[in-house]
Amino acid sequence: MNRLNEKARAMIAEAIGAENIIVEDEILDRYARDETSDLEHAPDIVVRVSTAGEVGRVLKICNELGVPVTPRGAGTGVTGGAVPVTGGVLLSLERMNRILEIDERNMTALVEPAVITGDLQRAARERGLMYPPDPASLDSCSIGGNVAEGAGGPRAVKYGTTKDYVLGLEFVLPDGAIITTGGKFVKNATGFNLCGLLTGSEGTLAVITKILLRLVPAAPFSMDLLLPYDTLEAAVDDVYAIIARRVGPAALEFMEEDAIRLTARHLGQDMPFPDARAHLLVQLDGTSEEAVRDQVAAIAGCISVPEERIIAAESRAQSERIWKARRAIREAITAESPVFLAEDTVVPRSEIPAFLKKVKEFLNARGLRSVMFGHAGDGNVHIDVLSGGMPRAEWDGLVPELKKNIYAIALAHGGTITGEHGIGFTRRDYLGLALGEDEIALQKRVKAAFDPRGILNPRKIFGD
Amino acid sequence: MNRLNEKARAMIAEAIGAENIIVEDEILDRYARDETSDLEHAPDIVVRVSTAGEVGRVLKICNELGVPVTPRGAGTGVTGGAVPVTGGVLLSLERMNRILEIDERNMTALVEPAVITGDLQRAARERGLMYPPDPASLDSCSIGGNVAEGAGGPRAVKYGTTKDYVLGLEFVLPDGAIITTGGKFVKNATGFNLCGLLTGSEGTLAVITKILLRLVPAAPFSMDLLLPYDTLEAAVDDVYAIIARRVGPAALEFMEEDAIRLTARHLGQDMPFPDARAHLLVQLDGTSEEAVRDQVAAIAGCISVPEERIIAAESRAQSERIWKARRAIREAITAESPVFLAEDTVVPRSEIPAFLKKVKEFLNARGLRSVMFGHAGDGNVHIDVLSGGMPRAEWDGLVPELKKNIYAIALAHGGTITGEHGIGFTRRDYLGLALGEDEIALQKRVKAAFDPRGILNPRKIFGD
Repeated sequence: MNRLNEKARAMIAEAIGAENIIVEDEILDRYARDETSDLEHAPDIVVRVSTAGEVGRVLKICNELGVPVTPRGAGTGVTGGAVPVTGGVLLSLERMNRILEIDERNMTALVEPAVITGDLQRAARERGLMYPPDPASLDSCSIGGNVAEGAGGPRAVKYGTTKDYVLGLEFVLPDGAIITTGGKFVKNATGFNLCGLLTGSEGTLAVITKILLRLVPAAPFSMDLLLPYDTLEAAVDDVYAIIARRVGPAALEFMEEDAIRLTARHLGQDMPFPDARAHLLVQLDGTSEEAVRDQVAAIAGCISVPEERIIAAESRAQSERIWKARRAIREAITAESPVFLAEDTVVPRSEIPAFLKKVKEFLNARGLRSVMFGHAGDGNVHIDVLSGGMPRAEWDGLVPELKKNIYAIALAHGGTITGEHGIGFTRRDYLGLALGEDEIALQKRVKAAFDPRGILNPRKIFGD
Repeated sequence: MNRLNEKARAMIAEAIGAENIIVEDEILDRYARDETSDLEHAPDIVVRVSTAGEVGRVLKICNELGVPVTPRGAGTGVTGGAVPVTGGVLLSLERMNRILEIDERNMTALVEPAVITGDLQRAARERGLMYPPDPASLDSCSIGGNVAEGAGGPRAVKYGTTKDYVLGLEFVLPDGAIITTGGKFVKNATGFNLCGLLTGSEGTLAVITKILLRLVPAAPFSMDLLLPYDTLEAAVDDVYAIIARRVGPAALEFMEEDAIRLTARHLGQDMPFPDARAHLLVQLDGTSEEAVRDQVAAIAGCISVPEERIIAAESRAQSERIWKARRAIREAITAESPVFLAEDTVVPRSEIPAFLKKVKEFLNARGLRSVMFGHAGDGNVHIDVLSGGMPRAEWDGLVPELKKNIYAIALAHGGTITGEHGIGFTRRDYLGLALGEDEIALQKRVKAAFDPRGILNPRKIFGD
């Protein structure tokens, strides 16, 4: 530990107690990674805070000393947002994990940042309410991280992403100021929309210490459909038909053929339509069984798949079977190729077929295997490229070129480079492909308005 | 015109042509007001721009000279946002009024800022699509103004406000930089959410020159219900019951007794339930007549009003009759008392009865008449206080105390001082009631990140 970090340690110990500081190497090592493959850097100190006041005292000290602070919730991010790449203080919010209030009448939840998203969903559901955003990691990720990243999930097509649910925030600035903004109302024209700005700011502007979320009445009934296709284009045509029919599905996911085949092999025989060129998975929800059945009938009437080929899950077991393949994709990939590149580009819905075709051609020409799947309803496409048997050094050398090309194709199709995972550390060098110089300069000035000394999550979002 | 403005005039004339500049007093006078009562200040020059490039050249000149620039769309705001209170350049965007594209497949509209909101709604509807935000002034206000103010409307309870529809923006900074952000996708984790920040920024951060909006499939069927109540509390209980029943009404408006009586007198006998203590107006929409009827049945089953007292509009004429009173409130007020105070506080839905009771008591104790109405579903309460026969000087002296007290009551009930009209000029001295010193200081730093010389819409939002 250098002298500056040593000084920070001593001052923080005095301010909030030495018992809240970790300096033992073997524990620091646990905070060196999030779920980004191939990225680790241990912090010099881990500070575990329990209140906004403690956060303020720690930040004020670090700000005065110029010591980097990396906020961390559950550490489930996949672009290195919670990795302390410049060392310094890892500010762990893991102890701030209480659901403070669920207000049934105003349909809001007030939570601390380390509440696990799935726990909030269950607490809401017990009261007949629902917190819709459903990132794949919902049983391990924290709501603070969801706000920091602007997390989405399959239900975004009907219910939107995290930003559509943040009504209020308590956050702490590097100078120690604690600010509470927003409240239990969906309309607010009182000054700038800081909730909107902070959601998705990846821990670079402030440390969020309380979150007021909008809940919606739970939909008690749901049904899942699996639709097989002979071409990806036909699947995307039906995505449009379903949306235009105003059915409003709660999820509208796709898998293309390579994703289907890889997963089918991984799962053995237990998968419907393993030979299709594309699958659509549709989830419908509603207030009555009849309302859901009406939606199923509306979909059957507007899509190209003949009714006898539609698999409709009538039970939870059937639902599980339908979603099994979609949920097993990452597992199948990891089993096949532990090292892989995971991108989450987004394109206009209409561009999905052309975009995927171009990406596939580009990767095939390099002899690379890839699988594509994701959120067809909102154009958010997951592209996983497998390293396969390629020697590690060669793969590492190849990744920047792969990213650059995938991003360029997404941008050429009117899309952008990340839909829900964020820029973080791993994509910071590519931000300039998506945003112009003037916009990046502006965003850096916004960053400086919050964090003039640049201590908060340095080297994230912006390249050097 | 002082020498600085004269210099600006000459430089702008050279940059974009003298034919786009107005300096004649009688025309300048037309740009001295928006729809805020009692506020006028003429600009020194009006500049009418047609392209983002022209906006950039004008802003660059004014930024270099330090000349204030007030952007203006249709001038229908009610808090003085478009009034050039410090003189200088009035930047009129009125010529930038084209709908550039409606993309049916991706369900987006690309528009210039001066497109009238109602025109966009009609253009969308012709294609089976819908642009939901519906401020009362929708046939005269412009979409650029809606974005600047974060406009809402009755349909916000189901469909959200303007910020929920802005997918992308082209905007110009004071230094002339033209920035395009966002795109035809609902998920975006690529850098900070500038669309979210700019929506509702009241023309103080940048001049918006293009807007990419999300559209939704149109709901072809709708029905309106009028529900009479003996107490306001019973009405608000039913608001909660309707929302909890997950009916998802497209509008859920209320009028309290003074609003009902004043409007009934203004309209003569042509109003249902003129003696009720509160009305709820419910609009339902859906893809089929049956779906709408199911919603009506669900509502009838969960509210306290007996079925025979519910008026359900079966025809357009009946709908008009139901909405007539709600729409005639402002007209009735103006007829009764041309000078009045119009507030649009917002409180948590559950607080509406207690909040209105307190405000009413406060106003009654001062012998003032008031009418209250608005968006029950989202807690956005319009409070109009009538000056009646009070001498003008006395009234003007009273207004600050009225505002301060109404805002204090809203804040004490967990609300805030404006839900959809913005802070603008008329509420700038009260921002400190709603936001803490640290938040205001932060917002001013954000403002400086966009507009370091403070030329854009000066004296708006922030007090001196």
